[in-house]
Amino acid sequence: MAESRKVIFIVLDGLGDRPCEKLEWQTPLEAAFTPNLNHLAKEGICGMCSPLEFAVAPESGPAHFELFGYSPFEKFYPGRGIIEALGTGIKLKENDIAFRVNFATLKKGKIVDRRAGRIKNVKPFEKDLSMELRGVKFILKAGTEHRAALILRGSNLSHKLSDSDPRKINKPPKEVRALDKEAEFTAEILNEYIEKACKILSNHRINKIRRKKNLPEANCILLRGAGKFKKVESFKKRYGLRACCIAGAGLYKGFGKFIGMDLINVKGATGSKDTSIKAKFIAAKRALRKYDFVWVHIKGTDLYGHDGDCIGKKKFIEKVDEALGILTDVKALKVITGDHSTPCSLKEHSGDDVPILFHGVGVRRDKVSSFGERECANGGLQRIRGKDIIQEILNLIGKQRIIE
Amino acid sequence: MAESRKVIFIVLDGLGDRPCEKLEWQTPLEAAFTPNLNHLAKEGICGMCSPLEFAVAPESGPAHFELFGYSPFEKFYPGRGIIEALGTGIKLKENDIAFRVNFATLKKGKIVDRRAGRIKNVKPFEKDLSMELRGVKFILKAGTEHRAALILRGSNLSHKLSDSDPRKINKPPKEVRALDKEAEFTAEILNEYIEKACKILSNHRINKIRRKKNLPEANCILLRGAGKFKKVESFKKRYGLRACCIAGAGLYKGFGKFIGMDLINVKGATGSKDTSIKAKFIAAKRALRKYDFVWVHIKGTDLYGHDGDCIGKKKFIEKVDEALGILTDVKALKVITGDHSTPCSLKEHSGDDVPILFHGVGVRRDKVSSFGERECANGGLQRIRGKDIIQEILNLIGKQRIIE
Repeated sequence: MAESRKVIFIVLDGLGDRPCEKLEWQTPLEAAFTPNLNHLAKEGICGMCSPLEFAVAPESGPAHFELFGYSPFEKFYPGRGIIEALGTGIKLKENDIAFRVNFATLKKGKIVDRRAGRIKNVKPFEKDLSMELRGVKFILKAGTEHRAALILRGSNLSHKLSDSDPRKINKPPKEVRALDKEAEFTAEILNEYIEKACKILSNHRINKIRRKKNLPEANCILLRGAGKFKKVESFKKRYGLRACCIAGAGLYKGFGKFIGMDLINVKGATGSKDTSIKAKFIAAKRALRKYDFVWVHIKGTDLYGHDGDCIGKKKFIEKVDEALGILTDVKALKVITGDHSTPCSLKEHSGDDVPILFHGVGVRRDKVSSFGERECANGGLQRIRGKDIIQEILNLIGKQRIIE
Repeated sequence: MAESRKVIFIVLDGLGDRPCEKLEWQTPLEAAFTPNLNHLAKEGICGMCSPLEFAVAPESGPAHFELFGYSPFEKFYPGRGIIEALGTGIKLKENDIAFRVNFATLKKGKIVDRRAGRIKNVKPFEKDLSMELRGVKFILKAGTEHRAALILRGSNLSHKLSDSDPRKINKPPKEVRALDKEAEFTAEILNEYIEKACKILSNHRINKIRRKKNLPEANCILLRGAGKFKKVESFKKRYGLRACCIAGAGLYKGFGKFIGMDLINVKGATGSKDTSIKAKFIAAKRALRKYDFVWVHIKGTDLYGHDGDCIGKKKFIEKVDEALGILTDVKALKVITGDHSTPCSLKEHSGDDVPILFHGVGVRRDKVSSFGERECANGGLQRIRGKDIIQEILNLIGKQRIIE
């Protein structure tokens, strides 16, 4: 039989975990009832993946650059701000500067909530916080919940800027500093903008309502992850594969767009815990007719990890497993992994390896019969790096890189 | 449960070995009765470590630089002489030059014993061999047994110098050669010093006594491993961990000091086969109250390897295992490995991987149930590099490096 020529690549964000006391010292993936995943593991080959470097914890942005072969990421990575901005749907122009923004709550000059009580929607602030100052356009675009992106468009702008977000509460926001001489103008005008923006927020009708309701005000913006937009070689050009992205959260949509993938919008794909995994897989199955490479991103696993909810994470994995039934008869190379570990005991990203499996015609087999951290550590793939995944995919679909 | 925040890192020098005929083709570690190590292996995760590169044999100096994350070691390694000098307790100044020194026996211009009959103590020579020549201070500091360090202090000195130690007997000592133009003055004055020193030794009262007793005279010094002292970023600054070093032998104390660790002096810690392992572990347990990171170095395993004594090595490992009982109830991440392999069949360092284990809250588990070369090769950690150890430690205590 010929090798599969089509690929479905499923990334369960923050999949990897550590032994949890509540799960009798199993990980959520080990403890979950996952007949579909186990079947794929049994017929396929498993291993462990260090997304960037062994024992190093990546944020999802850089991790995804590695996973799709845009590494060394320093060369391609445009900064978190750019990825976040792309995820909001804005069309960026060459040399645009962008930051990731948190709406936060300030009291007596100090941050008391870095997420303004996880305010549901910051879209109503978009227009009021977009303006032009000394020839520089400031565009604020809402993301999910308290998140947004700030885009600076103009000439002679630099992204060599420090964050204003101190990443801790009970501290005042920092001034944005120029990290080199050329960034001084950008830093100056940006600080001016931030001051203006916070004034506008303090008097904003939304905050007046929040004050009345005793909700934390969104009276401050915190900036981080400055980046500059530069086009990169598209995924299609790089690998010769027509690719699409099925994701809910902005960061992943933004990344998919950044590398030139088509975005497939799926009803019910929220990028949150309540996302419809089934809808995503149904869309993926359909997309495989048109595309060579379908990337499905599922965020829930990571969210449960950040909450420290190992039972929730286990149950969410079980939902993913059940939905995988939709893909049973799909003739494609299936690759399932995470972009990093988010252990429930840590509630943040760790440097632990992530289980990975490859399933499809032509894939070598190993002795692993269930998909979990412990089993995969003895898998036939052994330990691979994030950047190895795309090469192995190309290899398995007959598009291997040949060195002459 | 929260992750352990404290670390005890035990390095059994030259731990790794090869199958020994006398042990029915087991390695000393496999053959040894080690209930404590096996218990840790069973509850923790094991693997193999290539200290520098796969199949490459490091000396203990560079191996330790890698193990503590001061790699690429070429950047940080100041030369063996500097590490040896620091181990003697001398406080070095920026740009000091240092050599490792062996006291040796010369007869008719040829070396007949590179260790002067393993002379017990060379401290009585310190004062007589320390002097000033043409503005350059020469300071000789005794190490253990026949070992010493020679420090050159002055202006315009270079460490680009060849060794005088030919590393073989029945050869004359070599002249120290300048390896570049700038080192010519240092080479010249150093050869002048060596001549003077050997004359002083020939007429030294200690050697008169040794002649009478028919012991090999310490009538010559052999220099190797020239280095120049440059301060490096301290371990504390680099990792945010208050660290101490519990070691007997000079090289390790010197290294610990070089990276800014506090040295804990332990009575009975000789850096030799007769060292008191128990005293070291008791000191380690106490040190964990004050320090975040306690490094215990044990030299015996390596010495038995160099002697080709596999039974001795096995018994020494059993002594270590017994002493480990002292640490049973210690709440800390425990990491146990070696800095390289010293197979008894070779009597020197080899490039074989070294078994490693991690044990503590939050550590993933694997199927390994005893600590040995064969078992660890199937461990969940698979193969890691020396430089990965410190990253994995940081990862497991919640101080993982995060890439944004």
